[in-house]
Amino acid sequence: MRKTLLLLGIGLCSLQHPVFSQTGTITGFTKESSAKQQALEQQFDGLLNAKNVGNTIQELSAKPHAIGSPGSKAVADAILAKFKQWGWDAQIETYQVLFPTPVTRVLEMTSPTQYTAILKEPALKEDGTSAVEGQLPTYNAWSADGDVTAPLVFVNYGLPSDYETLAKMGVDVKGKIVIAKYGRSWRGIKPKVAYEHGAVGCIIYSDPKDDGYSRGDVYPKGPFKNEYGVQRGSVMDMVIYPGDPLTPGVGATENAQRLDRKDATTILKIPVLPISYHDAQPLLAALDGPVAPADWTGGLPITYHVGPGKAVVHLKLAFDWKIRPAYDVIAKIKGSTYPDEWVIRGNHHDAWVFGAADPIAGQSAMLEEARAIGELVKKGWQPKRTLVYCAWDGEEPGLLGSTEWAEDHGKELQQKAVVYINSDGNGRGFLNAEGSHALNHFMYQISETVKDPETGVSIFKRRIAEQMVHAISDEKKQALMNQHTLELGAMGSGSDYSSFIQHLGVPCLDLGFGGEDAGGEYHSIYDSWDMYRRFKDPTFAYGVALAQTAGRAALRMAEADVLPFDFRSLHKTVDGYINELMQNVQQMRMSTMVENKMIATRQFELAADPTKKMVFPTEKPAVPYLDFSPIQNAIVALKTGSDSLAKTWEKMLNNPGMQAKFNEALYRAEQQLLSLNGLPRRPWYKHTLYAPGFYTGYGVKTMPGIREAIEQRNWQEAQEQIKVDAAAIQQLAAYLAKAAQL
Amino acid sequence: MRKTLLLLGIGLCSLQHPVFSQTGTITGFTKESSAKQQALEQQFDGLLNAKNVGNTIQELSAKPHAIGSPGSKAVADAILAKFKQWGWDAQIETYQVLFPTPVTRVLEMTSPTQYTAILKEPALKEDGTSAVEGQLPTYNAWSADGDVTAPLVFVNYGLPSDYETLAKMGVDVKGKIVIAKYGRSWRGIKPKVAYEHGAVGCIIYSDPKDDGYSRGDVYPKGPFKNEYGVQRGSVMDMVIYPGDPLTPGVGATENAQRLDRKDATTILKIPVLPISYHDAQPLLAALDGPVAPADWTGGLPITYHVGPGKAVVHLKLAFDWKIRPAYDVIAKIKGSTYPDEWVIRGNHHDAWVFGAADPIAGQSAMLEEARAIGELVKKGWQPKRTLVYCAWDGEEPGLLGSTEWAEDHGKELQQKAVVYINSDGNGRGFLNAEGSHALNHFMYQISETVKDPETGVSIFKRRIAEQMVHAISDEKKQALMNQHTLELGAMGSGSDYSSFIQHLGVPCLDLGFGGEDAGGEYHSIYDSWDMYRRFKDPTFAYGVALAQTAGRAALRMAEADVLPFDFRSLHKTVDGYINELMQNVQQMRMSTMVENKMIATRQFELAADPTKKMVFPTEKPAVPYLDFSPIQNAIVALKTGSDSLAKTWEKMLNNPGMQAKFNEALYRAEQQLLSLNGLPRRPWYKHTLYAPGFYTGYGVKTMPGIREAIEQRNWQEAQEQIKVDAAAIQQLAAYLAKAAQL
Repeated sequence: MRKTLLLLGIGLCSLQHPVFSQTGTITGFTKESSAKQQALEQQFDGLLNAKNVGNTIQELSAKPHAIGSPGSKAVADAILAKFKQWGWDAQIETYQVLFPTPVTRVLEMTSPTQYTAILKEPALKEDGTSAVEGQLPTYNAWSADGDVTAPLVFVNYGLPSDYETLAKMGVDVKGKIVIAKYGRSWRGIKPKVAYEHGAVGCIIYSDPKDDGYSRGDVYPKGPFKNEYGVQRGSVMDMVIYPGDPLTPGVGATENAQRLDRKDATTILKIPVLPISYHDAQPLLAALDGPVAPADWTGGLPITYHVGPGKAVVHLKLAFDWKIRPAYDVIAKIKGSTYPDEWVIRGNHHDAWVFGAADPIAGQSAMLEEARAIGELVKKGWQPKRTLVYCAWDGEEPGLLGSTEWAEDHGKELQQKAVVYINSDGNGRGFLNAEGSHALNHFMYQISETVKDPETGVSIFKRRIAEQMVHAISDEKKQALMNQHTLELGAMGSGSDYSSFIQHLGVPCLDLGFGGEDAGGEYHSIYDSWDMYRRFKDPTFAYGVALAQTAGRAALRMAEADVLPFDFRSLHKTVDGYINELMQNVQQMRMSTMVENKMIATRQFELAADPTKKMVFPTEKPAVPYLDFSPIQNAIVALKTGSDSLAKTWEKMLNNPGMQAKFNEALYRAEQQLLSLNGLPRRPWYKHTLYAPGFYTGYGVKTMPGIREAIEQRNWQEAQEQIKVDAAAIQQLAAYLAKAAQL
Repeated sequence: MRKTLLLLGIGLCSLQHPVFSQTGTITGFTKESSAKQQALEQQFDGLLNAKNVGNTIQELSAKPHAIGSPGSKAVADAILAKFKQWGWDAQIETYQVLFPTPVTRVLEMTSPTQYTAILKEPALKEDGTSAVEGQLPTYNAWSADGDVTAPLVFVNYGLPSDYETLAKMGVDVKGKIVIAKYGRSWRGIKPKVAYEHGAVGCIIYSDPKDDGYSRGDVYPKGPFKNEYGVQRGSVMDMVIYPGDPLTPGVGATENAQRLDRKDATTILKIPVLPISYHDAQPLLAALDGPVAPADWTGGLPITYHVGPGKAVVHLKLAFDWKIRPAYDVIAKIKGSTYPDEWVIRGNHHDAWVFGAADPIAGQSAMLEEARAIGELVKKGWQPKRTLVYCAWDGEEPGLLGSTEWAEDHGKELQQKAVVYINSDGNGRGFLNAEGSHALNHFMYQISETVKDPETGVSIFKRRIAEQMVHAISDEKKQALMNQHTLELGAMGSGSDYSSFIQHLGVPCLDLGFGGEDAGGEYHSIYDSWDMYRRFKDPTFAYGVALAQTAGRAALRMAEADVLPFDFRSLHKTVDGYINELMQNVQQMRMSTMVENKMIATRQFELAADPTKKMVFPTEKPAVPYLDFSPIQNAIVALKTGSDSLAKTWEKMLNNPGMQAKFNEALYRAEQQLLSLNGLPRRPWYKHTLYAPGFYTGYGVKTMPGIREAIEQRNWQEAQEQIKVDAAAIQQLAAYLAKAAQL
């Protein structure tokens, strides 16, 4: 589901990581066990085969396999059979989840001229699967049923700030249908914000500037979106809670208590439909009203107007709101020493249509890991901890399979889960890694041992080179040159790690490659085998690279003597967040003061063109000084706690008798960062450090309780959330200090 | 000729100007003479009439009137008659200048498909003059004759940095025809840089993203460029010297000694032709080769490729290289007290076609000033200093009329010219003011007394409001809120002030309004009366505002007791330039060091996509430390000199006996900033502070000798030019110190 984006210049500060394990050893291993582990990984690498990855991609992407479709069941069964064949203890766990499919889709312009949208991606002779039957048509899951006719308004990307711009232009969307570009926010945010502003319908289209010919040659000549391509996708209000809308917080088992559909807050209230730029052009060209601001202009050969005016559209949508089975394939290899410590690895298997890249490329890499591990087991190896490999169903509509499983097994997971390692789509390029910040050094070591298939240097060095070349300042470049840690990105949403990290506090990693695989196939019928082999990863070498990277993460976690968590890097990261937040408030105070002065002296009026309709801003209340001291003190305590834990950690390597207890303390530490009540207005999200943004969607908000309150200028809530987050950090600090006494 | 652009955030530092004239008085006037001057200006304002401005625009833009055409003679004669009618002592001074007009214009694509460019702007029923005969066709003056057939390469804006990007992609333009977008540099730079890189022909087109439907509705529905619109214009290498290419440095009188055309260095060596986006699209769509970098992409509905490949074009151009008359209308009103001190005001009258905005809007404002001044004279008033109003011919092809006149009268001007006040195109919006920095406070006072027609506040306050709203930092906004001076922009080129300031050292001002008059008519047949009255300044109120502003500048300069030059603001400005240059060198040193390290460690290779052809940068020599001390010491001397001059200046207001001598010292001070040898490789340009950029064209380079040497990494020349500029500044400082002793 997640569109793999290359994150540049992630993280806030360049951590010069003090190496705390003996030189040449793997963190968490002694010199002896390290050598053994290296031998194991060498064996593991030797078993991975790019051809298998390619074959699996072709096999699993041959037919449409969205959740609830025959194809989904077939893919789940095929994966189950593979696991079993490779010696895993595998089964399918089935949940019963709501999933709407379209029955009626009509979009037409009724004025000033008539245009009926095609709403169909054509089969292409160059794309072998594009004519295969059983495709879900182009739609947004969780749109409301609706039949509306209203004037059209162009709202740019449909972000809250876009509506502020419209308000300045005197344009209101109340009672209108809005048309928004894909991009800049997760798609589900667009209809939600449109609804909040009174719109009665929402159209989302792919503008060729962002996703079409302006980017490069279009499919099938090149990889970019052709004029008929449409991005399907969920618009569930997943930032409230992901998973089955009818069973928030609990597993959607057969007999689970279910909400009435009308009470499910994550289902959209207005009809919403995604369209191609071929279908969007006549609508946009018909708009009158003010010319859109310069930075709203897309790549169509027209003047973009905002409307409203003569352009009126009719949008009629109806869905089949059915409960359908989600088939999660769960495969285990029991741990020899710590059978009740689970190292969990997952990737979804459902796709909007064929999903060769998303998710099958990641799924195939994971299956190749599983095959190789099966071979190791056949040769007599057994992991110390239990390996749990999961192929999730229903990720695309809203992380259904993983969320229901995680909710169903929540207590057990908080007891047993050492880590959850996720992947999703995958392609040629650079390592992208997000996760719990206590794992920075762990991932640094791994990324230094995996070779980039194209350049032969480590995937770490290649990632750093890429960041360096794109860094905007010499200072940042120099810092990168001297960087000897991997700064994991903070986790937002958009893939199956969400429940683990944000609801349960299970330490997580999310791994993938990309950046040299740009294209426009995402969630279209052209995310296909032919597209993949031509443009995404023709040699499947990055499938192997992902298997090496995620496989190493799983194997090291399974085998470590002392689990490789280092909370000193978490401290540094959080310290950076807090400094950033304090600067933000300071900056807002200054901006508000200056803007209020400008308003008082009529500067906006004086600068405006009086021939154009404009609504001028009004003064905002001054930004108060907030008391950040609780969190500043908490940060100091966290430093003390993480520093003393690091000392104990070193000693534990040579103290096997205490390792079991110490390890459990380590992997359950992340849970200390959960708050009892969760985030304001979305209690499902309990992690105090990471959440998807309420108005950005996939995009992470770090310290979300405080940050979003500040962004919304809700100073009272910001002050409350400072205390909530401070309490969580103090709780972690005390927990670490206590663990250091073991 | 100059495209009036709104300059945002000009200048380097916010000068808190110490008011040195008595409160409530006009700078340069005593309390008594100030009151008299205010009364005069009130009378002057009362005589200005927007209707007249409109009528003059309609009259003078009715027929095509490029230099050498019957229309040009007719316009010059009409202007002459007006001046005479209004009581001015007026005459036409004629120069004989080279001016090529097109005989053959062929552009066709011969492969992979056939396309013959239209090269013609159609007449429109909504535009009353668009069918009038006698139009110069679409072309670039000073293109070479040529007949070339070659593969096409897209070079973005054709800047030196664009060729660096092409080189990195392994693309060479040697023997190719290049196609460049208009914009980012003066057009003449594009074929010059193309030629330097070995191209055999150059096409320049207006991309709809910069100048077409992406900006707004196109003509005649809206003001922006329609698909057939073409920007004509000069491509003379004016940064070497402007004016008649055959008579550099001397007036192009009948019997002047002339270069052979082949020896004229400012005439292009390759054929170059401007085209519309209608004509450009098939050519660009036919390109293959690498996809253009993302920031090169324009607004056409195609994937922009770079070429070269199958796309081959044939460009055939021939010109009639004729010597033609340039008719400068020169009108004088003799000064009563200082007849040999000239306050010069000018605006060109020639246009590429009809030129309602460029130059007739400015010309009409100037004529309205002249009419009002004539009325004042009829009522018995006479200026203390001689007023010289000039309507220049041949500005469009390369400042021909003004340059030849200034060269012809060079010695006299250096003796007599107090100031040259220029204007050009004009429209609705904000004051744009450039000029000699000793006139900051003078222009501040004027801009505080002229009312903006739309808002009723002063044009200063409106300009500040506009800068404030667009300022990028709160600090800048606050500084603007407290700013009580007008920071004049530094002068580049592109209008008739060039010879005065850059060749002769005559203090200059360049004034105009714009920013709410955006359109695509520039240098097309649609720069017409109908376009002007609909989209540029429908009430002609900004014509009156220009007349008020430039008229005040002329009248105050003509009447001042002590001329209003304050070199303390010049000192602050130059001090800012030097600090900026030192920072630039420091920044380059750092960047070079970091980039060299990155090259040494192969970062560019590691970050690159190995499937794409790339040429990687090689290490550059380290940036040495330069000795800036000569100029730092000169700046200190300039501070001393300008401070003591300011003290004397105050006293002079009450010392009428010394004013004549002191005033002459003041207005000739700017000449101290000229260097004997001029700028490296372009000796015509003698001003050490301001010149058009060698690789930017119109765009100014301040301290050009030093700055361009630094930009070109010519450290030896930079060091030499530091000494040259230091000597000029020391010379001015000593001159001011001496004048302070009067």
